[in-house]
Amino acid sequence: MSVTGPAGFIASGIACGIKPSGDPDLALVASTHGPVPVAAVFTTNRAAAAPVQLSRRHLESTQGLARGVILNSGCANAATGAQGLLASQETCRVLADAIGGTEEEVLVCSTGLIGIPLEMERITSHIDALVSSAGSSRDDARRAATAILTTDTHAKEVLIEADGFVVGGMAKGAGMIAPNMATMLVVLTTDAKVSPAQLGAALRSGVRDTFNELIVDGCTSTNDTVVILASGAAGEVDPVKFESAVTLACTKLALLLAEDAEGTTRVASIHVTGAASIADAKRAGRQVALSLLVKTSLFGSDPYWGRIVSELGASGAEFDIDRVSVAYGGVVVCKNGIEVDHDVASVSDHMRLQHVRVTCDLGLGSAEATILTTDLGHGYIDENMRTS
Amino acid sequence: MSVTGPAGFIASGIACGIKPSGDPDLALVASTHGPVPVAAVFTTNRAAAAPVQLSRRHLESTQGLARGVILNSGCANAATGAQGLLASQETCRVLADAIGGTEEEVLVCSTGLIGIPLEMERITSHIDALVSSAGSSRDDARRAATAILTTDTHAKEVLIEADGFVVGGMAKGAGMIAPNMATMLVVLTTDAKVSPAQLGAALRSGVRDTFNELIVDGCTSTNDTVVILASGAAGEVDPVKFESAVTLACTKLALLLAEDAEGTTRVASIHVTGAASIADAKRAGRQVALSLLVKTSLFGSDPYWGRIVSELGASGAEFDIDRVSVAYGGVVVCKNGIEVDHDVASVSDHMRLQHVRVTCDLGLGSAEATILTTDLGHGYIDENMRTS
Repeated sequence: MSVTGPAGFIASGIACGIKPSGDPDLALVASTHGPVPVAAVFTTNRAAAAPVQLSRRHLESTQGLARGVILNSGCANAATGAQGLLASQETCRVLADAIGGTEEEVLVCSTGLIGIPLEMERITSHIDALVSSAGSSRDDARRAATAILTTDTHAKEVLIEADGFVVGGMAKGAGMIAPNMATMLVVLTTDAKVSPAQLGAALRSGVRDTFNELIVDGCTSTNDTVVILASGAAGEVDPVKFESAVTLACTKLALLLAEDAEGTTRVASIHVTGAASIADAKRAGRQVALSLLVKTSLFGSDPYWGRIVSELGASGAEFDIDRVSVAYGGVVVCKNGIEVDHDVASVSDHMRLQHVRVTCDLGLGSAEATILTTDLGHGYIDENMRTS
Repeated sequence: MSVTGPAGFIASGIACGIKPSGDPDLALVASTHGPVPVAAVFTTNRAAAAPVQLSRRHLESTQGLARGVILNSGCANAATGAQGLLASQETCRVLADAIGGTEEEVLVCSTGLIGIPLEMERITSHIDALVSSAGSSRDDARRAATAILTTDTHAKEVLIEADGFVVGGMAKGAGMIAPNMATMLVVLTTDAKVSPAQLGAALRSGVRDTFNELIVDGCTSTNDTVVILASGAAGEVDPVKFESAVTLACTKLALLLAEDAEGTTRVASIHVTGAASIADAKRAGRQVALSLLVKTSLFGSDPYWGRIVSELGASGAEFDIDRVSVAYGGVVVCKNGIEVDHDVASVSDHMRLQHVRVTCDLGLGSAEATILTTDLGHGYIDENMRTS
């Protein structure tokens, strides 16, 4: 059900002709009861695409109310100048005409190639079809989740059933998923009755330890956006349980993104323990997670712990090589900075799994953090070496 | 001639059995006239290898005087604990016995796999052979330059003939060459008569815009070291000319390292102009140079300028997309943030060259910087996916 799981939402996904393949490339998630509380987190990239610029403006002008989100894939509408902004504006205006309300009550997302003009008419001429085909079935949600994909190999949906309310979501990712998001679009919906401010707080908290701690290639995109809409249909909810449910939805989607990252064969969680501070734990974990050498070793199923130690030392986190330990799948291979006798066969088996666990204990304090990363292999090169 | 080009130096390179292949793996560069001024720049990695820790100590204790540098390849002697430090100490002690002077007058470098114990006896038992085979011929220098290689495909040497003095040098690199050096060993020699302080200033200046602006994979190694020794045989020199000659030697070696980086098929210079400050120009250039997506595009000869703009925007440098231009080989493809008509065939031809030039004009100020980077292709994955 994903985004149509919570009462009060309809979704739709169709092909409007942006993708040369003819695959679905236009999606809608909309409220069935007028404007509802909304919150969003956007890319920090200063080359933010037109849809990001416009959605930020809309959120501000409505102070957190929206009727829906329209998303296209196949073109990022980034680095497209004034014409690009106009295209996003026109998209919102035409959708508002179709579903009622003002254009400020519409958010817009785009994903795909950067620097290519968005053929606005393809979208605007299909908005009637998009709206008229929207519904609240599982299939409608799946059509929306499919229409936002780029190099993803499958739709990514989640539905969290919580204490008297639900949180649904869809995501697209594939490449460029750096800390602080990247080439990632996520739409979450919930039937919880929460204010825009509560919604924003829960979303920022949910994003922090999930999408922001997932690294594919360290690139930060022009377009990434996470939006959450709350219909209120389920009534008031416990704020702590609400935040947990949003975080869980983000966690599950982040894992789906990692597993389906461009050319990925393996996902690794880098768990840093014993750091002097949480900031240090994250810094150390990110340095390891971003390392091309570590990622290439993961691809080769090679437990080369020396590279892990080198990255920890290079991270800028407080570090004493004589206290550091490294374990793969719980088997300690390096202790106090040097190799220790260990079960080589067991490590070797672990390195071949689809999910590898690397634990780095800095031996300095009690702070910890977990960063999710992917391996780097030939598939990534093949996916990205040419855009056409 | 490289390191034996300047009068007052001998060099040598032999096989001592660290490399399982039996290839040369032990090198010496030594003064023929006792202790001479020396300066060095080391890795900033907090997991610095034993030879780095010891060489730092020696430099400090002699206040910048040395008789020679001994280098081994095949084992980094990093993450090797107290035993590793002992191995480096013993190496220096035995060499000092052989060439005269104190062990503090010897610097030591290692490169190769991290976390593997250094078999000290292989080195110490070969020091007599190393010293007795040292000479000042072109071939002796080449033997030293060869014995420090790891995954490099060929020896890297340079000789700069300046105004009344010369600067020679040898380098090994291959992978992990990040800004602020990495898995790079360089020994420079000169016959200029300069103090340790002058030598240090010239070296830091030379390294700053060369090795520190070369990016292969963004990893910073445990072992990188650049050493310069000055025999004084040529007498006093002009300090400005001296600094220029050292910088030129570093520039040439940095280019050789880039060209021979692991699995590289192409080198690109990322020239950032119009930045608000030099720090911004470097920040923007490094972000582009480090980007897996940009590097993968370079491998595919794909002029995907959108990725360049995205990285500039993500770099943290002051940025206004409406002012940014991107050119490949001097052909502007993006102006004021959007694509402009350009000679597609000419860009396409340029992208197939071994040296690609990318110019990013931020349109904000007059500061500029150039970063050297390499492409990322299948060769890098193959080289690094497994250590054995």
